Amino acid sequence: MMELARESHDNCELIFADQCFAEDGHFAGNDALRRKTFVAMANDPDLDAIWFVRGGYGAARMALDISSELNDAADTKLYMGYSDAGNLLASLYRANIGTQAHGPMPTDIRRDGGEKAVRRALDWIVNRDLAALDPSLEPNHIYAAFNLMTLAMMTGTPLMPNLSGHVLMIEEVSEHLYAFDRAMFHITSNLQNQKLAGLRLGQVTDIPENDRPFGENAEDIARRWCREHGIAFLGTANIGHSANNMIVPFGNSDAWRTNG
Amino acid sequence: MMELARESHDNCELIFADQCFAEDGHFAGNDALRRKTFVAMANDPDLDAIWFVRGGYGAARMALDISSELNDAADTKLYMGYSDAGNLLASLYRANIGTQAHGPMPTDIRRDGGEKAVRRALDWIVNRDLAALDPSLEPNHIYAAFNLMTLAMMTGTPLMPNLSGHVLMIEEVSEHLYAFDRAMFHITSNLQNQKLAGLRLGQVTDIPENDRPFGENAEDIARRWCREHGIAFLGTANIGHSANNMIVPFGNSDAWRTNG
Repeated sequence: MMELARESHDNCELIFADQCFAEDGHFAGNDALRRKTFVAMANDPDLDAIWFVRGGYGAARMALDISSELNDAADTKLYMGYSDAGNLLASLYRANIGTQAHGPMPTDIRRDGGEKAVRRALDWIVNRDLAALDPSLEPNHIYAAFNLMTLAMMTGTPLMPNLSGHVLMIEEVSEHLYAFDRAMFHITSNLQNQKLAGLRLGQVTDIPENDRPFGENAEDIARRWCREHGIAFLGTANIGHSANNMIVPFGNSDAWRTNG
Repeated sequence: MMELARESHDNCELIFADQCFAEDGHFAGNDALRRKTFVAMANDPDLDAIWFVRGGYGAARMALDISSELNDAADTKLYMGYSDAGNLLASLYRANIGTQAHGPMPTDIRRDGGEKAVRRALDWIVNRDLAALDPSLEPNHIYAAFNLMTLAMMTGTPLMPNLSGHVLMIEEVSEHLYAFDRAMFHITSNLQNQKLAGLRLGQVTDIPENDRPFGENAEDIARRWCREHGIAFLGTANIGHSANNMIVPFGNSDAWRTNG
């Protein structure tokens, strides 16, 4: 990982917090340790970005009210990750602290073709290379991207950002289609009154087999619930739990286009 | 099933709608057929109760705004089931149509000891036998009971009833402990301001093994999230995906105690 970063992006230095290697039951350290480590790194003026190592589950347990502990240095940073890390992206986006992007994480190096995913992530983190972005992104639009189940479990909680006017992109992994359908019902119903600009469906991967064919595929399901709740279905996006996970910066696309 | 009912409860007649045997992908008939069948039976003045055959997934797809199609005969009925059928119980409870109870369904006859579960259900449906009720129920309390994931996916949607003042009972099946934790975060956060009387944890069964031990059991998780969100944890309840699934009528317990 370090070698790959040095070789392809020699203008950056990667630092892994010791906490990343801690173990506490399901988690890489208990909630207090993970929160303390995140806050210390976010507040460190010598760091330019926080790159979440992996998803899994646990960010919701340490993301609540985290903005109250962050300083001006935290506000200058880019935060990137996806899957469960979406809880932290959402919390920071809602609090308007720093910039956030949905994109590959260091753990993706283990995937088939994972080096490409990690290089793409570094291309954005280090160089703001526009080629790393999902090709569906357009100027003067507002974007956010989440894992569907992560987003579904944030609705109505203090982690949930206001998504009005946004193109919302979602992706899912390892869920039965009936669970995908159920979560799409939940999300489109909850967002019905937020006036999304529309919804794009990312990859839906590793779907466990139903006991009988569900009767629709993921895109059918997304289209149906969008129609039911008056949300524009805009098509697909190349985000998801795969090496082909393109970057989606949160917020207005003009901000990063002019910086890029 | 019919024989069992005749033998133990000869004062009742069970009628299975043809739709129960229909197939449409994942579902027992498409949404329109299932809705039409439910509405016709609910509105039939010759029927005393609607006993949902099974859970699975699909009720959220046909429960939205269903109360607008129901008549006075629907208002005199008992509706009973659990798991995904909780979507219909919730919708009817919210609309104040009829009475609702969380309890075994005909499909439970396939379980080990399932005849006892089905007899218990009929004891309540036919005779309002108080021995069928969960022993934790007390006079002058307001109750509701749901599958946790079913409830989590109803929050913020038009299916979600107002649970203020309620003792909320939840049960879960076939979810990893991290998914249970995530759903408990969601539910306790969403219900934080509803002033529940408290929460009781039913059975949490068929938990898939985590890749490493999660670090807490289901009761630890429930207690922690209740503490975090200021909800009284009242203990356990005998409800769940097992033959030992006791009945929990929705609403104020004095209503059924005096009728019972």
